[in-house]
Amino acid sequence: MANISVIGSGGWGSAVAIMLAKNGHRVTLWSYLKEESEDLKKYRENKPFLPGVKFPDGVRFTSELSECCQDADVIVTATPSHAIRTTAKNMSGFIKDGQIIVNISKGLEEGTHSTLSKVIKEEIPNCEVVVMSGPSHAEEVSRDIPTTNVVACENCETAKIIQDIFMNPNFRVYTNTDVLGVELGGSLKNVIALCAGIVDGMGLGDNTKAALMTRGLVEMSRLGVALGAKHETFNGLSGVGDLIVTCTSMHSRNRRAGILIGQGKTPEQARDEVKMVVEGIKTCRAAKELADSAGVEMPIVNEAYKVLFEGMAPGMALKNLMGRDKKHETEMDFLGTVK
Amino acid sequence: MANISVIGSGGWGSAVAIMLAKNGHRVTLWSYLKEESEDLKKYRENKPFLPGVKFPDGVRFTSELSECCQDADVIVTATPSHAIRTTAKNMSGFIKDGQIIVNISKGLEEGTHSTLSKVIKEEIPNCEVVVMSGPSHAEEVSRDIPTTNVVACENCETAKIIQDIFMNPNFRVYTNTDVLGVELGGSLKNVIALCAGIVDGMGLGDNTKAALMTRGLVEMSRLGVALGAKHETFNGLSGVGDLIVTCTSMHSRNRRAGILIGQGKTPEQARDEVKMVVEGIKTCRAAKELADSAGVEMPIVNEAYKVLFEGMAPGMALKNLMGRDKKHETEMDFLGTVK
Repeated sequence: MANISVIGSGGWGSAVAIMLAKNGHRVTLWSYLKEESEDLKKYRENKPFLPGVKFPDGVRFTSELSECCQDADVIVTATPSHAIRTTAKNMSGFIKDGQIIVNISKGLEEGTHSTLSKVIKEEIPNCEVVVMSGPSHAEEVSRDIPTTNVVACENCETAKIIQDIFMNPNFRVYTNTDVLGVELGGSLKNVIALCAGIVDGMGLGDNTKAALMTRGLVEMSRLGVALGAKHETFNGLSGVGDLIVTCTSMHSRNRRAGILIGQGKTPEQARDEVKMVVEGIKTCRAAKELADSAGVEMPIVNEAYKVLFEGMAPGMALKNLMGRDKKHETEMDFLGTVK
Repeated sequence: MANISVIGSGGWGSAVAIMLAKNGHRVTLWSYLKEESEDLKKYRENKPFLPGVKFPDGVRFTSELSECCQDADVIVTATPSHAIRTTAKNMSGFIKDGQIIVNISKGLEEGTHSTLSKVIKEEIPNCEVVVMSGPSHAEEVSRDIPTTNVVACENCETAKIIQDIFMNPNFRVYTNTDVLGVELGGSLKNVIALCAGIVDGMGLGDNTKAALMTRGLVEMSRLGVALGAKHETFNGLSGVGDLIVTCTSMHSRNRRAGILIGQGKTPEQARDEVKMVVEGIKTCRAAKELADSAGVEMPIVNEAYKVLFEGMAPGMALKNLMGRDKKHETEMDFLGTVK
């Protein structure tokens, strides 16, 4: 049994807290706002995000970061991506050697385009960071629906410790050592999910969407390899697995925003209507900038960029993609030499 | 402009005939039954398979195989997989050097587990065979919905000739030289689509289905590599692309049969209700036999086999899959050494 603190009480943080408590661990769930924490304590339910699902008896609630960090064997970070740096900075004074941080937030830091594990390590240099990712809607995990995920750490033994802690008969965990690949997959897929939404919104077919997802995966993998990740990782749970779940489910706000754009709304109107952060819009800019500086060709990301930031009509973007030069499908793609 | 004969007037053969005629080629469409051919001529429409879509003026119809083969530059085979050997044997006397055969049928031959291009070459040793595959519902291609496919041939120059003939602004074609990988992808995905249907029929979630598809793809790739294919091919249009379209669409009878099994019907009842050949059931047996003799581990295929042929309940199969030993996600998988 481990002492585990989960930092961030949104849907995913709460679902993981519930699961870890059911696995038999002592879990503390931290909320940014005191009132949020008090609501969780009062109702023993995350009413906004996971209505109808009760926290097991063992889960404790707090908004004191020091209390969370000091006695924990494992600290799970689950804040929104834009809050990771500040949260890690605030945590840094309380972290001791030997504690393991498991980051389950997805995204890239705005401006620096850093992965979130890198941000955490910059703020807490003495810690070991594991990342967890994969096709896992919080709603389904909180209801014990069979789910698989991957935990990645350069140190495979540490990944195995986390695998042991998280795995149960309804949550199957694989290990991986390609931290960068796992994080990039979980972030870049939001751009493709947004585009999949646009295709759906335009009323195109299953063929078009499958083409977009397949060639989108090729682009994600190509950028990842250029940045130092392994291309096999993109064919795993944190790559194609998460891509599939995000592109086909109405749970995804990236996809919902895309549908609105495909139906003729501007990106601003879509963002306003979805009423939440649309990670894929920010990530599209990050992906384009990373690809441009690495000299990697990402035709889908480029066309998405024109639609999202330069006012191009989605129909024109599709025409551009379908009308590109004739290509060979594999091999050279991954080397990034033949464009 | 090329002279092209399409052998087989089902949905996919008809859709390809329509597309090639629109591309400006002289197309002849062959039907097995004289009456079928006469109906096509009379209505200029494939009423059973593509209702509402007219054949362009240029398309001619026949049930004479000699007529089809003799003047064609390219012969497209589009019969059901079980009819490929007989059809190729019947064609063999009419084939001349320099003609290119493009096989667009998918499947493995029952009994021998041969790929269909291998069957054609055994019956017509002097021909060059290209295979075409990818995420392409016939209904959508016949209506010019943007679609991508891959054409594969050991001889890349021949693949490029076929790419030129098939490609148009709504049908984008990539070349590949891994014929075996392209054919195995198009065939093995039916087993995973059947399992995806079972997951849907059991009322499980998006997480479960994405896990199944991702790990199913790993198994397909692992078997393919053991048989001599390239694993990159499985991450392309004929692999993950076709897998996505088949697992998520109600057009797929493999998925429909799976849904019925997931709801509690026996495989026999499901087959009777779907009223058509369920390729995934046959292919599951073939995949298991191929994997066993190659010494490749395919846990999903093994559990599917128990459900389809040994009366195991789907819930037990899922439990077995989720409860397997702890694993690492990548690398060794593809070498087939660490199981």
